[in-house]
Amino acid sequence: MDTSDRRLDEQIRFILEADKEKDILRQNYLPSGRHENDAEHAWSLALMAWLLKEYANEPVDIAHVMIMCLIHDIVEIDAGDTYAYDEQGRKTQQEREAKAAERIFSLLPEDQQKEMKALFEEFNRSETPEARFANALDRFQPLLMNDASNGISWKEHQIHRDQVESRQQKTKEGSETLYQKALQIIACNAGKGLL
Amino acid sequence: MDTSDRRLDEQIRFILEADKEKDILRQNYLPSGRHENDAEHAWSLALMAWLLKEYANEPVDIAHVMIMCLIHDIVEIDAGDTYAYDEQGRKTQQEREAKAAERIFSLLPEDQQKEMKALFEEFNRSETPEARFANALDRFQPLLMNDASNGISWKEHQIHRDQVESRQQKTKEGSETLYQKALQIIACNAGKGLL
Repeated sequence: MDTSDRRLDEQIRFILEADKEKDILRQNYLPSGRHENDAEHAWSLALMAWLLKEYANEPVDIAHVMIMCLIHDIVEIDAGDTYAYDEQGRKTQQEREAKAAERIFSLLPEDQQKEMKALFEEFNRSETPEARFANALDRFQPLLMNDASNGISWKEHQIHRDQVESRQQKTKEGSETLYQKALQIIACNAGKGLL
Repeated sequence: MDTSDRRLDEQIRFILEADKEKDILRQNYLPSGRHENDAEHAWSLALMAWLLKEYANEPVDIAHVMIMCLIHDIVEIDAGDTYAYDEQGRKTQQEREAKAAERIFSLLPEDQQKEMKALFEEFNRSETPEARFANALDRFQPLLMNDASNGISWKEHQIHRDQVESRQQKTKEGSETLYQKALQIIACNAGKGLL
């Protein structure tokens, strides 16, 4: 086995590990009535990044946003999905996810390990235009799914309107337009008694 | 409702329509033993596009490859998944998919309708470096999945080694390196009696 073969084998090993995102279920439901998984959620974010890029508050490098969207939840393979409104779970979330990032990204060749870890941290710090827009989408997309599935997961967890509105502050940081739409959607669901 | 509101509403309608890809099952299995769906497959391709771009035969605009990967199967919402080795189904595939593209992309604002249709056609013609690389990934990824799930779908459909090798010609057009790896994987599975 020569060096280039080893490099590709490491990349494939990572791709197969990442594939486990398809089995990590999120709390929110799809319109079809089943829970969404992390890979499906990430696909939606990357597609939305391209289609809605005109609404980013600042100009963004769109490939950078898309790859961030595609990998932002990969740590949940080890750390599990922490529900947006799970206050207890969120206390240990950062530590659990940092450990997972260490293990999972270390499957890659060294240059790509560094690149993926940096992208993952950039997303979490949410301090660049790309990260702010990716985070906006990460808040806006579940709202669309909740809206399209009659708020079943809100009802299951007895979530209140102010909690949902407060989650959308991140949307505002990345996209004022999507934030305004989010407020409309929330008001509409509150009007229907779903929040 | 002002014009910009209508534009965003059209984009959201398209995003919710595209979401149905999460319910379109492919023939191949995931290592966990269930069928993969189109959204999951598209997520894998876009992630692989970024991670394996160094192996594209020609330089590529990676955002362009990624968006093509993310939407290439969207027509299957109407046209269904046509199995790679279904000779009958493949005869009507083009017509069914063109009709679907017409309906689904027409949900978008006009500029994005044109953009998405062009990307979809570019993928299918496979004549640009970006489309050739996206098509290579579209052949290589199911091979990885079949390899990781002990070739169950090959067995179910009594697929032969020469059929699988012939599908990988498209991989060769987009990436010589991935093609060589594909041949190794096929030989290994043939050696185990799975092909």
